[in-house]
Amino acid sequence: MDKIRIGFIGIGCRGQELLKAVILPQGMEVTAVCDTYADRAECGAELVEKAGRQRPHVYTEYRDVIDDPAVNTVIIATAWESHVEIAVASMRAGKAVAMEVGGSYTLDQCYELVETYEATKTPFMFLENCCFGRREMMVLTMAEQGLLGEIVHCSGGYQHDLRKEIAYGRENRHYRLRNYLSHNCDNYPTHDLGPIAKILKINHGNRMVTLSSTASRAAGLEAYIRDVKPDDAFLRGRRVAQGDVVTTVIRCADGSTILLTLDTTLPRYYSRGFTVRGTKGMYEEATDSVFLDCPEHRAHDFDWLSKCARNAKEYEDQYDHPLWKQFLSDGVQGGHDGMDWLEFKEFFRALRENAPMPVDVYDAASWMAVTALSEMSVARNGAVVDMPDFTGGKWHLGMGI
Amino acid sequence: MDKIRIGFIGIGCRGQELLKAVILPQGMEVTAVCDTYADRAECGAELVEKAGRQRPHVYTEYRDVIDDPAVNTVIIATAWESHVEIAVASMRAGKAVAMEVGGSYTLDQCYELVETYEATKTPFMFLENCCFGRREMMVLTMAEQGLLGEIVHCSGGYQHDLRKEIAYGRENRHYRLRNYLSHNCDNYPTHDLGPIAKILKINHGNRMVTLSSTASRAAGLEAYIRDVKPDDAFLRGRRVAQGDVVTTVIRCADGSTILLTLDTTLPRYYSRGFTVRGTKGMYEEATDSVFLDCPEHRAHDFDWLSKCARNAKEYEDQYDHPLWKQFLSDGVQGGHDGMDWLEFKEFFRALRENAPMPVDVYDAASWMAVTALSEMSVARNGAVVDMPDFTGGKWHLGMGI
Repeated sequence: MDKIRIGFIGIGCRGQELLKAVILPQGMEVTAVCDTYADRAECGAELVEKAGRQRPHVYTEYRDVIDDPAVNTVIIATAWESHVEIAVASMRAGKAVAMEVGGSYTLDQCYELVETYEATKTPFMFLENCCFGRREMMVLTMAEQGLLGEIVHCSGGYQHDLRKEIAYGRENRHYRLRNYLSHNCDNYPTHDLGPIAKILKINHGNRMVTLSSTASRAAGLEAYIRDVKPDDAFLRGRRVAQGDVVTTVIRCADGSTILLTLDTTLPRYYSRGFTVRGTKGMYEEATDSVFLDCPEHRAHDFDWLSKCARNAKEYEDQYDHPLWKQFLSDGVQGGHDGMDWLEFKEFFRALRENAPMPVDVYDAASWMAVTALSEMSVARNGAVVDMPDFTGGKWHLGMGI
Repeated sequence: MDKIRIGFIGIGCRGQELLKAVILPQGMEVTAVCDTYADRAECGAELVEKAGRQRPHVYTEYRDVIDDPAVNTVIIATAWESHVEIAVASMRAGKAVAMEVGGSYTLDQCYELVETYEATKTPFMFLENCCFGRREMMVLTMAEQGLLGEIVHCSGGYQHDLRKEIAYGRENRHYRLRNYLSHNCDNYPTHDLGPIAKILKINHGNRMVTLSSTASRAAGLEAYIRDVKPDDAFLRGRRVAQGDVVTTVIRCADGSTILLTLDTTLPRYYSRGFTVRGTKGMYEEATDSVFLDCPEHRAHDFDWLSKCARNAKEYEDQYDHPLWKQFLSDGVQGGHDGMDWLEFKEFFRALRENAPMPVDVYDAASWMAVTALSEMSVARNGAVVDMPDFTGGKWHLGMGI
């Protein structure tokens, strides 16, 4: 692609942040903006103008963006439920897609995403920014270099107290509220699963085979509403469907296991709990520590934590990912500690070079499917469900899908 | 019981430690010692004599201890597999029992333990020392006082790199080796489950309903043997049955969930990962932190961890359990940071006062059953299994079982 001309769809909180902190500062041309709420669409246009660029076309229907000949690339930052529909329409129109994260409530959608990509070969990138986190990429590098031995188990979580965002969902026109009232599943699996899937080579020699999800009861959000919004006539006494903590266990073809936690409606500090366990060592986000199987580490066993916690910094010089080394020397920019900047830089690079997308449609389908599968499993009290292979049997061939 | 006269069965590593650091320093009378290995039995006798006491009777058959009229209380610290057989024989002979921890590979054994207790009413205590840990008791106190709100989810693990102990099991006559070669399950669930069960009032108004366990492949111990014992003719090339990480999810009658991790054959630092989540707050061992739902904590959300980690100390003055407050003022003694001392003090007190045991036969049966159930579930790739109610329906009545 010679000149990338962006139609940006979905100008809520996330969309505004991406425009302001990443897309416009990277010098990209935004030719159209769109939101179903006209005020938000206008806000997007103003952000573009404030950056000294030409006013973009402004739409409230995503199909108008896709039909606009001034657009050749669509970025999707709408509510979860509409991501796939818009991405599929874009790909069919031959317009490259970068799609924000979220789970999928149906397997159909995941298949549709893959089938549309395979039929059209339109470039598609899944915007899983945590795959571009500094620690995630450092640990990926350590794993690829064999420092952690055979990787046997990984865990992570989306552990974020979102009670306020959810409880004020009607005031803020936020999609989480309606989903928490009606669904019970791991509704947001990709921030934790993405970096783990890269390390375990999911769809590139390995695949996820079965899943089991168990939800605790839903108490946190209801208690919050009683405390903080006792006079909200819509929410008062309403039952929340979404369990506070959803624990998901995944078995992979190579015998490794993945533990995912969705934990968004109880008081806690933010953490993705990224943990990688191998026969030679581990990384753990909770203590930001690398524990290697060397005599010095074994020696202080019981008091290792008090001596060595947060030692992962010591490994940065040697094991920071090349992308991050460059990023640090250029100067880290953009939101979420630079992850957003890097993911778009890589998306635009792949688009220009017609190179494989760093987070592709098979990644998207297999990670998003966790939501649909976990909803099935939770409804059956944790029953094991089979996970589809979206690569059509090509997962074991490695990188060349 | 007027005068406690102890027959101590099982003088391996744990038995010696208990005699030396707890039983003899507490001034208890040990009238018999026993181990199937004569040298270990003799070692027990010497420990008693070295403490300036009369030489105990020395046996290699546990039945001789139970038959000995000089013994009215039996302490069992043998290999896992023999615990229940010895405890049942003791209770039948009317001799009080304190039984060390470990899982049970069959449900039959768990039922037998309960049925024998109910038939004989011989005092029985399960030696789950972690129920007496300072933090565990502090968090129990906080939970009981409502500081954490409704408790919705708890997690914990037995996370201990035991590769050396296991791989040298033949040299050290240790029972873990044979079990790791033949079983695949959460073989040691009670250190993590015990304190959680107390907080969730299991068997006292709540009960565990279903369980699902998933094992990763077994790679850690085999890699260790290749590296460290390449010339061991017995172990070379031998397949280990026990997966490196076993993840167990339990659903309780009140809708709360429990996550347990067995993690003993990969390099790591020691941790029981004790975590309690309520609608008003959390405790987390990994960061030794209390996070409460108050505006100050919400305010720094993203950087809370770097500001507040290891803040649990600040809650000790107010929330240390009364037993621990007394213990600290008397001076903490004994192994495992004082837990062992306290559990035996409480056992002997209950025995003398004919009071309910702090960790009773229903606790033992329901916690030990996790091993048998997890083995069933792992063999079926994580299938959900039902958990028996060992109280015969009395769990919902509360404390008065």
